[in-house]
Amino acid sequence: MPKIDFWYDYSSSYSYLAASRIEPLAKAAGVAVQWRPFLLGPVFKVVGLNASPAEVFPIKGRYAWRDMERQTLRLGLPKFKLPEPFPTHSLLAARTALVLSDADRPAFSRAVYQAEFGDGREIGDRALIADILKRLGHDADAVLAATGEQATKDRLRAQTEEAVRLGMFGAPTFVAEDGEMFWGNDRLEQALEWASGSRPK
Amino acid sequence: MPKIDFWYDYSSSYSYLAASRIEPLAKAAGVAVQWRPFLLGPVFKVVGLNASPAEVFPIKGRYAWRDMERQTLRLGLPKFKLPEPFPTHSLLAARTALVLSDADRPAFSRAVYQAEFGDGREIGDRALIADILKRLGHDADAVLAATGEQATKDRLRAQTEEAVRLGMFGAPTFVAEDGEMFWGNDRLEQALEWASGSRPK
Repeated sequence: MPKIDFWYDYSSSYSYLAASRIEPLAKAAGVAVQWRPFLLGPVFKVVGLNASPAEVFPIKGRYAWRDMERQTLRLGLPKFKLPEPFPTHSLLAARTALVLSDADRPAFSRAVYQAEFGDGREIGDRALIADILKRLGHDADAVLAATGEQATKDRLRAQTEEAVRLGMFGAPTFVAEDGEMFWGNDRLEQALEWASGSRPK
Repeated sequence: MPKIDFWYDYSSSYSYLAASRIEPLAKAAGVAVQWRPFLLGPVFKVVGLNASPAEVFPIKGRYAWRDMERQTLRLGLPKFKLPEPFPTHSLLAARTALVLSDADRPAFSRAVYQAEFGDGREIGDRALIADILKRLGHDADAVLAATGEQATKDRLRAQTEEAVRLGMFGAPTFVAEDGEMFWGNDRLEQALEWASGSRPK
């Protein structure tokens, strides 16, 4: 089965949209999805941004929030709520996601996004992450303890370094097995088409 | 008939994609299109960019050119050719477009874009614009003379100031009669849906 890497950051609103859509679409396309959380902060620095685009370009940011209201409505997601302050702190959620298995990562990720952009919660809050883990049947204490281990920290750092190496500059980003890269929730369909081999080349 | 304003800059590659698609889609949606050329340069300055995004963020720029190759292929447009140097100079084309009538502007605009991104030409070249005008049956000398008139210059400046006032930060941008704004070729369908009243609100 062809595979696609889904690169996302927990503070990225458009990654939230992609996370909510990718599984049924990938299934229909016959493509397996590898969920790859990373940190946009270091990526933005390499690109030449000292903060998130919404902070650096507030005019564009205001548009993005209106667009998010429209897109969440279209997708039947909860009414969009911008967490205050934004961006949220995605480090803990990303480390937690890497402690979980590949199979458990999607449901956790969707739950984090929903808390963040549906309820406006700060996902850097350890108690919130613990609640989500418990709700999904995980041993929250054990998982959270593992997020503090050096191996987990190194793994997230390696993921982020790989994102930089691949030339990423934002999220979500989809990378097919041949290295073809697609940026943005709006490219999800084309990325899956490419990965499945059923696209113009 | 509902109306939509299509804001574009002749140096914007994604505006080229929108210009190639908007007429049949708008017709099918029952929406009239007002073609509104403007200059992105002053808009970028207001947003906080000292040059085009592709220049300020070369990593993102490289991705955009690859994406343009894919999108032009999908749309059956000529093989994408990045003009050198990029960005091209869109001032003359924009003034020319404003001298032409609303009815003549779309064909002229598509021809300019095709020369630019299909043939890699510098559209700041007066001879190229004259050729395009002649090919479309216009009196090239008369039109080009009018581009130098103060009224034409003022009109383009007013368009660009309106773009800034509306909160624009890029192109293409679509604005419905109620002021709802959609940015990017990828939002063309949603913009037309909104303008025609057949969308979730």
